[in-house]
Amino acid sequence: MAFSEFRPLDDKALIDYIKATPSLSSKLKNHLDDLTIKEVGDGNLNFVFIVVGSHGSFVIKQALPYIRCIGESWPMTKERAYFETVALREHGRLCPDHVPEVYHFDRTMSLIGMRYLEPPHIILRKGLIAGIEYPLLADHMSDYMAKTLFYTSLIYHNTTDHKKAVAEFCGNVELCRLTEQVVFSDPYKVSEYNRWTSPYLDSDAEAVREDNALKLEVAELKSLFCERAQALIHGDLHTDGHADEQNDRNAYKAWILRIIQNTWNLFHRKFIALWDANKDTGDAYLPAIYNNSELQQLVQDKFIKDLLHDTLGFGAAKMIRRIVGVAHVEDFESITDASKRAVCERRALELAKLLLKERRKFQNIGEVVLAVQQIQ
Amino acid sequence: MAFSEFRPLDDKALIDYIKATPSLSSKLKNHLDDLTIKEVGDGNLNFVFIVVGSHGSFVIKQALPYIRCIGESWPMTKERAYFETVALREHGRLCPDHVPEVYHFDRTMSLIGMRYLEPPHIILRKGLIAGIEYPLLADHMSDYMAKTLFYTSLIYHNTTDHKKAVAEFCGNVELCRLTEQVVFSDPYKVSEYNRWTSPYLDSDAEAVREDNALKLEVAELKSLFCERAQALIHGDLHTDGHADEQNDRNAYKAWILRIIQNTWNLFHRKFIALWDANKDTGDAYLPAIYNNSELQQLVQDKFIKDLLHDTLGFGAAKMIRRIVGVAHVEDFESITDASKRAVCERRALELAKLLLKERRKFQNIGEVVLAVQQIQ
Repeated sequence: MAFSEFRPLDDKALIDYIKATPSLSSKLKNHLDDLTIKEVGDGNLNFVFIVVGSHGSFVIKQALPYIRCIGESWPMTKERAYFETVALREHGRLCPDHVPEVYHFDRTMSLIGMRYLEPPHIILRKGLIAGIEYPLLADHMSDYMAKTLFYTSLIYHNTTDHKKAVAEFCGNVELCRLTEQVVFSDPYKVSEYNRWTSPYLDSDAEAVREDNALKLEVAELKSLFCERAQALIHGDLHTDGHADEQNDRNAYKAWILRIIQNTWNLFHRKFIALWDANKDTGDAYLPAIYNNSELQQLVQDKFIKDLLHDTLGFGAAKMIRRIVGVAHVEDFESITDASKRAVCERRALELAKLLLKERRKFQNIGEVVLAVQQIQ
Repeated sequence: MAFSEFRPLDDKALIDYIKATPSLSSKLKNHLDDLTIKEVGDGNLNFVFIVVGSHGSFVIKQALPYIRCIGESWPMTKERAYFETVALREHGRLCPDHVPEVYHFDRTMSLIGMRYLEPPHIILRKGLIAGIEYPLLADHMSDYMAKTLFYTSLIYHNTTDHKKAVAEFCGNVELCRLTEQVVFSDPYKVSEYNRWTSPYLDSDAEAVREDNALKLEVAELKSLFCERAQALIHGDLHTDGHADEQNDRNAYKAWILRIIQNTWNLFHRKFIALWDANKDTGDAYLPAIYNNSELQQLVQDKFIKDLLHDTLGFGAAKMIRRIVGVAHVEDFESITDASKRAVCERRALELAKLLLKERRKFQNIGEVVLAVQQIQ
């Protein structure tokens, strides 16, 4: 059964679809009689089905032509599934250990079939909320970040390949525009979609909308997001590790801060190692120019420091939008007492504003962690 | 006569071509018997024919599949003519008073037919070398810069149109790569194509290749050039007004500095006027966010100051490459005494290095002009 045009799937139609699709049914060793299907999408955009059989499993992700958490009133091209697939496959090629394999893609149906990470795997965000310490987290995260960012940057690419990739991903404009709106615009203006823990944060949300210095800095970040193609990012890698819980978990707080510091420092070390090992490739820093160790050190230090400042800016913008914008996160939402939630959110908001406005003053991640500790 | 495949034109073939091309022959009112044709290309890339008849005239510019000033050993896609045409037409639409009209484009032949500015018009560079003062120069230049840059930026564009334009111009990768090489790379390394006024500037050229601070800054400019799509530029707008002559022309020097200052200040004023008049368009600065005059002032001041710093950086990189890179300019080349030429070139080189390294310290164009005066 081939679908000649797009239709949203339900459980029954999904089984028919799997039967007709060898790249999926083969993952179940063609045992299709004992499937359990669970729709679990807690994201803001897509439907997500977990399909488990006696001989295998996978995840089906289907993009609908509107934004799930708003509804059909906010249309959104389902072509985003195509770009997510291209990005997943490229990142999977660069870092197969930490990116789920894509088994199948159907552009007409905007449907991705990919690896299901079976229990005991859970979504990292839920593990952090539950207070679980992951000893390999910083190592794995930094591995993924270093490999995917380095190999899709001009330090590794030549400009011919880079421009070709940029031209293709220009087609993903609608999803980029959604980000522009919900991250860089709506939180800083009155918008029907904004929400926050009211009435506790009413004046905080208003303060964000009236903070000239903050809006000046957000304009710069938005311009970078819209204009500068530095590397291919997935755009949905976040654990909100900055957010903390209402109960006193000082040891866990310290662990999270260590993880943040370790992740950045390991990323730094691994990214530079890739750079050193690939000095002869890429158009950004030709070895005939960057030809002595002192200069190499200078450009690498400057690159990493600029990247830290960008990271603090974009990370802070994401924190703000998760508190006063349209789409919130479970880290805060799971705090049921609104007044307690508001206290946590306000602290995160103040930290985010500080990081965004003063990001250029931080020389390294250690200074950032100190600032987090001081605001607590 | 249609040419089904590319061939370089000579005078005779050009006449046949014009006869067969109504959009060209009509510009001559179909009087084709009294044409004079002169090949005048003094550029580095293309052949340029001036065609003058009794009833009209035009210029024919043909791109060849190699770089003219080097020869067939340096291949270069002739598709660049297509992108030049698109840019000329777009800039002509935005600023018809100061952009020559395109009459005809033939992609197969990589051939542009455009308006010929008949005498007494001469190329601005030659006028500056001759010491001519142009009373309207700053006004016209700033007009062209303000209109073409504003209307192709995200202050006016929405991101959908912007990404579409970016994707198209990613196709112009070969010409961009040429710029990357001859502006941002070759002058900072040993390259067979580099040349300079030898032996006088041997140690100066070497100093450029060994200046770590300079190379650090050039890397940042190159990244911006390769990664950031801020507006559509022609890439060949330059008068080398900074360069000066060997003879003592103090009044003219002062006039050139006034022109530089006036051009920037008029550009600033006109760009901001366009911004103020188009506050409701474009995705970069939404009026609901940038909603008070103090904030509007802040973002505009920051935008212009960042643009000044970028302009100083890119302008300085162009000065350096014109002195120690492959393609030089008549302003210096016309100084026949090599030792005198070297003195001028060295002074320009020192100024360029200062501007490039210290560009972020200049608060306005007046401070730049002061620095130029001090180095003289």
